[in-house]
Amino acid sequence: VIRVGVVGASGFSGAVAARLLAVHPHFELVFATSDKKKGEPVEDQLGVPTRLRFEPNGAAPDLDADCVMLATSAEVSADLAPKLLGQKKRVIDLSGAFRLEKPADYTRWYKLDHPAPELLASAHYGLPEVTGAPKGELVANPGCYPTAAILAIAPLVKAGLIESEGIIVDAKSGVTGAGRKATEDFSFAEIDEDLRAYKILSHQHTPEIARFAKVKLTFTAHLLPIRRGILSTAYARPRGKIEDIRACLSDTYAKTPFVKAKKPEEVRIAAVAGTNHCLVGAAADEDVVVIVSAIDNLVKGAAGQAVQNLNLWYGVDEGAGLLGLHRVLP
Amino acid sequence: VIRVGVVGASGFSGAVAARLLAVHPHFELVFATSDKKKGEPVEDQLGVPTRLRFEPNGAAPDLDADCVMLATSAEVSADLAPKLLGQKKRVIDLSGAFRLEKPADYTRWYKLDHPAPELLASAHYGLPEVTGAPKGELVANPGCYPTAAILAIAPLVKAGLIESEGIIVDAKSGVTGAGRKATEDFSFAEIDEDLRAYKILSHQHTPEIARFAKVKLTFTAHLLPIRRGILSTAYARPRGKIEDIRACLSDTYAKTPFVKAKKPEEVRIAAVAGTNHCLVGAAADEDVVVIVSAIDNLVKGAAGQAVQNLNLWYGVDEGAGLLGLHRVLP
Amino acid sequence: VIRVGVVGASGFSGAVAARLLAVHPHFELVFATSDKKKGEPVEDQLGVPTRLRFEPNGAAPDLDADCVMLATSAEVSADLAPKLLGQKKRVIDLSGAFRLEKPADYTRWYKLDHPAPELLASAHYGLPEVTGAPKGELVANPGCYPTAAILAIAPLVKAGLIESEGIIVDAKSGVTGAGRKATEDFSFAEIDEDLRAYKILSHQHTPEIARFAKVKLTFTAHLLPIRRGILSTAYARPRGKIEDIRACLSDTYAKTPFVKAKKPEEVRIAAVAGTNHCLVGAAADEDVVVIVSAIDNLVKGAAGQAVQNLNLWYGVDEGAGLLGLHRVLP
Amino acid sequence: VIRVGVVGASGFSGAVAARLLAVHPHFELVFATSDKKKGEPVEDQLGVPTRLRFEPNGAAPDLDADCVMLATSAEVSADLAPKLLGQKKRVIDLSGAFRLEKPADYTRWYKLDHPAPELLASAHYGLPEVTGAPKGELVANPGCYPTAAILAIAPLVKAGLIESEGIIVDAKSGVTGAGRKATEDFSFAEIDEDLRAYKILSHQHTPEIARFAKVKLTFTAHLLPIRRGILSTAYARPRGKIEDIRACLSDTYAKTPFVKAKKPEEVRIAAVAGTNHCLVGAAADEDVVVIVSAIDNLVKGAAGQAVQNLNLWYGVDEGAGLLGLHRVLP
Repeated sequence: VIRVGVVGASGFSGAVAARLLAVHPHFELVFATSDKKKGEPVEDQLGVPTRLRFEPNGAAPDLDADCVMLATSAEVSADLAPKLLGQKKRVIDLSGAFRLEKPADYTRWYKLDHPAPELLASAHYGLPEVTGAPKGELVANPGCYPTAAILAIAPLVKAGLIESEGIIVDAKSGVTGAGRKATEDFSFAEIDEDLRAYKILSHQHTPEIARFAKVKLTFTAHLLPIRRGILSTAYARPRGKIEDIRACLSDTYAKTPFVKAKKPEEVRIAAVAGTNHCLVGAAADEDVVVIVSAIDNLVKGAAGQAVQNLNLWYGVDEGAGLLGLHRVLP
Repeated sequence: VIRVGVVGASGFSGAVAARLLAVHPHFELVFATSDKKKGEPVEDQLGVPTRLRFEPNGAAPDLDADCVMLATSAEVSADLAPKLLGQKKRVIDLSGAFRLEKPADYTRWYKLDHPAPELLASAHYGLPEVTGAPKGELVANPGCYPTAAILAIAPLVKAGLIESEGIIVDAKSGVTGAGRKATEDFSFAEIDEDLRAYKILSHQHTPEIARFAKVKLTFTAHLLPIRRGILSTAYARPRGKIEDIRACLSDTYAKTPFVKAKKPEEVRIAAVAGTNHCLVGAAADEDVVVIVSAIDNLVKGAAGQAVQNLNLWYGVDEGAGLLGLHRVLP
Repeated sequence: VIRVGVVGASGFSGAVAARLLAVHPHFELVFATSDKKKGEPVEDQLGVPTRLRFEPNGAAPDLDADCVMLATSAEVSADLAPKLLGQKKRVIDLSGAFRLEKPADYTRWYKLDHPAPELLASAHYGLPEVTGAPKGELVANPGCYPTAAILAIAPLVKAGLIESEGIIVDAKSGVTGAGRKATEDFSFAEIDEDLRAYKILSHQHTPEIARFAKVKLTFTAHLLPIRRGILSTAYARPRGKIEDIRACLSDTYAKTPFVKAKKPEEVRIAAVAGTNHCLVGAAADEDVVVIVSAIDNLVKGAAGQAVQNLNLWYGVDEGAGLLGLHRVLP
Repeated sequence: VIRVGVVGASGFSGAVAARLLAVHPHFELVFATSDKKKGEPVEDQLGVPTRLRFEPNGAAPDLDADCVMLATSAEVSADLAPKLLGQKKRVIDLSGAFRLEKPADYTRWYKLDHPAPELLASAHYGLPEVTGAPKGELVANPGCYPTAAILAIAPLVKAGLIESEGIIVDAKSGVTGAGRKATEDFSFAEIDEDLRAYKILSHQHTPEIARFAKVKLTFTAHLLPIRRGILSTAYARPRGKIEDIRACLSDTYAKTPFVKAKKPEEVRIAAVAGTNHCLVGAAADEDVVVIVSAIDNLVKGAAGQAVQNLNLWYGVDEGAGLLGLHRVLP
């Protein structure tokens, strides 16, 4: 059994990750940290039996594990990862700290003077359907919006079926994508029955999509009055026929356990919320290709994909601990 | 034209009140205060034309008006009301500061050492269908839960059709009842798809309902994942027949512009949200009377009822500025 | 006083229209029809006093009025309008029946063999900020998506600040945009916590936007888990500077009572739901202009705009009966 | 491995049951029926791999299985159960068809002339924490409201800590409790932002609670604008001290895997939605005991409890296939 610890286990992604690990057939949750909940029984949060109590985040390097999952901010992850790697622990990071290529990208998009630029080249970007099984000791787990967008676009770019410039990604996310918030902006009264765009032309997931889908794009994020889930609607100029575009998506994902090609009107958040699945579907005319994709931002867009990466990294079944997840929609 | 100012005009109740006054045929909104928005144009919030800018709350006694509406906390209201009354301004208070009988009630239920106990006896409790048109210079505008509960119970108690002891009021409110909140507890992710009871056996609206419905009761409040509206389900032991109970409600409210008796299954939040209306309906068997009532907590439960009180106090039509309000449900 | 009747007054748009007319200072609601509610008191639905009872839809030509508002399907409107015009009544139609140019457009987009093609040329498209005050006897009231999209795009196209080809309009609407529905697809359990695109590349509002914004576009509609409101995110290639683009929107709408230019992140459904307002805002870089706009689909997107058109048509104040509408968000 | 079939597997409860069985370590899903989806791959609905296709409901008696789960209406269940029992298959029924004592109860509460009254006496009511492991060949799986209410009340009645008469149960449920609906009443536009009581004094779950909690009660059901979950607030007159009441709940449930005693303000739907857990908590003063309880209506209130019953009936671990379920709230 592989022994995994979670840093930041009371945030949304960290909490889902801790629960997935606690009931996983091949991994053991050996510690969970949270400054907010330190000392409390982890069982109270997970709802599954465990004798662990939350440790403070700062204790992470002192706790034994084969692998550490960081569900922390980019700043904290960039600081912790080198320490843990130095202890010969594998690290999988759910923040954006190791997803971009150059320190300058962090200055621009994350307002972060990256403290460990030497790790950027060796980090494996863990989007299994696009980048395969993890290699090395450090996995950068993809962001939620990039997961939805890249799975929709990358196969078509690679096959030369759409132009790689002038892409529009108009994405809509539930509120848990922003993490736990104690602000009036994220209060129920402000979010319920509303929709708005945010960080227009400045969202930090833009360069991540550009890098791994190999495109030049405009990305807009919107805040949905729902808890979980992302729907991404991407627009591109066609270089091939709709039949070939549909076949490309079907063929690419035919043998993957989690991504499925559907008609674009069948792609919806309720069909994937609670699961590690992604649905993609495309329509096209002579001027435009529209590709719709949907994921659960906390599962395929964060903690579930992290477990999928662990499964592949440690050579167990890719779907272990993930295929039995229930949809939120009955 | 009567000149009215609103203190605390950027909170939920204060904002609705300011808008109602800004388009009212007989009143003029002469000032609006808000520490949070001081200096900003009031028009930006109201969406109706006005040249006012928000003043700081502390400026209220320096601003000219015939009447001042306090949409402030009980502490602030208890402090401001005597000053304004001393300036010969009428005061209508939307907090609980003047609704209870004795200073000891405030110590117990509001944890407040009341600074103006001498005003408690002369304050008029402004629930027009029960207590009539305001008299005097100080109106205590009812709480949201008490409005829904008292309108359901009081006529039946008065007519001797239900026992006045052993009453249960199980009430459910949208989140705006708690005011603007910047806490994780009131974040969308915590409220959406949830329901919970709060302040069980200790809610400060309990003695207010007891006092004005003339009952001994158990009151439970629940937090609904909706913005606006209260549904109250009251239980009492019958002393009369269901025909007489229904007739009592129908007759009591037949000529009131805002309260209507309906079948209890027709009483619902969506039928009143956005309006100053209240629906009430009763069912009964030999053991129990069930009385359901619904209001918009910010309108009939706060700002709308305050305007209704002003209408009656100043002798204009009771429905002025209120009967044209649109329901949120189309 | 101008005497107005509403056909289809129990649907969402018709119900809002009937209520707006019932409390309007210059119009009188003289009849309301509904096959579903025929014989029932109209007051029960409106919540405002009136002695009217619902008439059957087929009785419309027999009922006296100066002007008839049709809140019916395109099929019913196309059939009724010529009859009413033949009786010298003015007609304002909320369906799509008179918005497109050629009968062939109806065959393609509405699957409708238009029964009154001779009226298409003379119908006035009633988007006041773009097409001015109504002329003639027949007004085609704009669709909800087109209202949001055209108000965002048309001024920039006209000023030559964006390319008129290759426009993307990614729009999101609350469920009332689809009318009253008794299907499992529109059940709460299917809509809540979900988002999906529909009628991809085939939505009938596409040619209406193209015609009146004078663009070639791709339009995608999405179904939001909210009751009311549309947010439209439009993408275009810039031909001018962002300063000029912002100035164009600000200047165009500076003196209009209902449309306001804002920063794009301030454009949100909650700021306009319940009102006849539209907010628009733009951001741009060298590759793209993003224009966000928001309306209430039942008010500015249907019944409110119809009343605005009536105000202008009959020469009363443009904001009459509309400026006092309250936002759903407190 | 025990071979289980599900009749009515495309309804809400049946769909959850089929998925739970499809990934269960000790059971095999051997068939799933649905008239609506007959012939379609079951995998498309479940999201987990299976080669089954939906059979028509009427084929159930012809399909091989050790045990059949009926997720059908009371009418269909009452008809099918005797046939299946005659084939020596075990039957677990999720409808109300075998929960009441006498045929006359069915005439009154279900408007059903019961076709198999001889089975009523031998059916085991499967609420494990109250009635233990199933015995015999027919299990009546409890209703959703009764599960929440009985788990809250029964231990206190049994211990003599509350009066068994004059109980009030005020319960609130998400929409999936009513099954899949294609009616305007259950459309998103009618349910969203609303709350109403229904079937006041006539809900068919009333006698079921009375029978198994051994009380005389008033029961009111309310329809919440959420998908999943029930919160029940019960009121009783105390016969003991609050310390003893709390201790009774804690002790009763200390060793059960799914029911937990908490402070009443910690009892909330979001803490149990998606899981087979139930939370209960009590408060009291000299006049009243308030007991709050929460479950997921489709899991502990239906399909999950059915699997818990199967686990106990077939002697496998009580939590098998259930303890790993994830909460909907992250």
